[in-house]
Amino acid sequence: MEKRKNETIELLMKRKSMRVFEDKPVPQDVKRQLLEASLRAATAGNMTLYTIIDVTDQALKDKLAVTCDNQPFIAAAPLVLIYCADYRRWYEAFCRVETEVRRPSYGDFMLAAEDAIIAAQTAVTAADAMGLGTCYIGDILENYETHRLLLGLPDYVAPIAMIVGGYPSRQQEERRQTPRFAVEDIVHENGYDMEKAGRMMEMIEEKEDWHGEDLTLRLKAFCKRKWNCSFSEEMSRSVKAMLDAWAGPESGKTSGRE
Amino acid sequence: MEKRKNETIELLMKRKSMRVFEDKPVPQDVKRQLLEASLRAATAGNMTLYTIIDVTDQALKDKLAVTCDNQPFIAAAPLVLIYCADYRRWYEAFCRVETEVRRPSYGDFMLAAEDAIIAAQTAVTAADAMGLGTCYIGDILENYETHRLLLGLPDYVAPIAMIVGGYPSRQQEERRQTPRFAVEDIVHENGYDMEKAGRMMEMIEEKEDWHGEDLTLRLKAFCKRKWNCSFSEEMSRSVKAMLDAWAGPESGKTSGRE
Repeated sequence: MEKRKNETIELLMKRKSMRVFEDKPVPQDVKRQLLEASLRAATAGNMTLYTIIDVTDQALKDKLAVTCDNQPFIAAAPLVLIYCADYRRWYEAFCRVETEVRRPSYGDFMLAAEDAIIAAQTAVTAADAMGLGTCYIGDILENYETHRLLLGLPDYVAPIAMIVGGYPSRQQEERRQTPRFAVEDIVHENGYDMEKAGRMMEMIEEKEDWHGEDLTLRLKAFCKRKWNCSFSEEMSRSVKAMLDAWAGPESGKTSGRE
Repeated sequence: MEKRKNETIELLMKRKSMRVFEDKPVPQDVKRQLLEASLRAATAGNMTLYTIIDVTDQALKDKLAVTCDNQPFIAAAPLVLIYCADYRRWYEAFCRVETEVRRPSYGDFMLAAEDAIIAAQTAVTAADAMGLGTCYIGDILENYETHRLLLGLPDYVAPIAMIVGGYPSRQQEERRQTPRFAVEDIVHENGYDMEKAGRMMEMIEEKEDWHGEDLTLRLKAFCKRKWNCSFSEEMSRSVKAMLDAWAGPESGKTSGRE
């Protein structure tokens, strides 16, 4: 019990996404510390299967604000980091020492993507620990071809996670935390629990405080906003293109290896 | 500068993966705190697109120790958590209120997988903060069909990340941290930097302290162990099967929706 009230646990429990920042740059030493902490995160086989693109150019931020579902707050963020899955470096190194090297495929994509996200989330916690606020931009998964060109990504490098950050505005600091589902509903024991999953409508009622006809109407609106919508369809098209470029039958043509 | 030496940053900087644990259970209140912190992590649209399977059954741990590339330390871990991407709950809820609902696809898979990993990495940091040690088991990405059956996973639920944990043995606590690549090599500015990536052989030399002929021999051995090897080929086959089941042309047949 004595360990429950520690600084890190409190930090994790208090976390909120922050989208609006003060007009104040993130000092170089703070950014450096954040990146060093990020690199210390667990990585498969200690291979660091990712590259972090630090976006400092305002023109590039402006473009990303458009390509990531038109969200102007991206352009105004002092810190913009894009975590890319990257198996190119190791694949090239293997090709330097071996004559027969298999091509990167789906498992390698996923392992590298996981490495990238694990590092990104560690950066998020480090940012929180230094008084910064951050927000993930899931929309970096959209417009794969555009982002690939914009960031100059070669084969076997794919944009997976994007974080914007800075010193949060007072309004952001003060707004309430969003509610979450209960641990009991999300954690299943020893296998998937269909009964728990079947409580979804009640789970939404309890979390969102939506009831009766209101629940139906709000859920319909939510479905329209998050599911039956253009950004969501574009994300699936784009991720499919990303997977195909990495591991599909036509992949890796430009590198001419194997 | 005054913020650089804080408890959380030190914790993140000191982190090591731990594979051997004391024969001492993780108290329920500690596990609960870890799971609550995990659920507070950022989640796309505040949707919690994952389910955590808490493996407490010894027989199931024993099986996972075999299916996850024969690693007996998995069976001996007091804490085993499997984070599954889960869009099933929301898809079912949308189908309850709308007549036309598009099927889950690649983008939804990736968004849910990212949610799962962000939550998993938050659990890892919470575990560290409470004196536990953890290790990711990337091999949960292998043997998709077996794991699906073993964990009773329905459509649109896929095992993405696995963590084992417990109180680390003294030997684990005392062993040195593994080296990492330098921040300068992994962080690129405003786009992918081919010159930096081209330093890979030097990066490996500097990180691993491998030189000359020794570098070639060790890299050949590493390639054989991590790339041209059966677990790695199985992982790609398995992830492809996982993607196909979720979003391929034959996906979702059993649910009969759309």
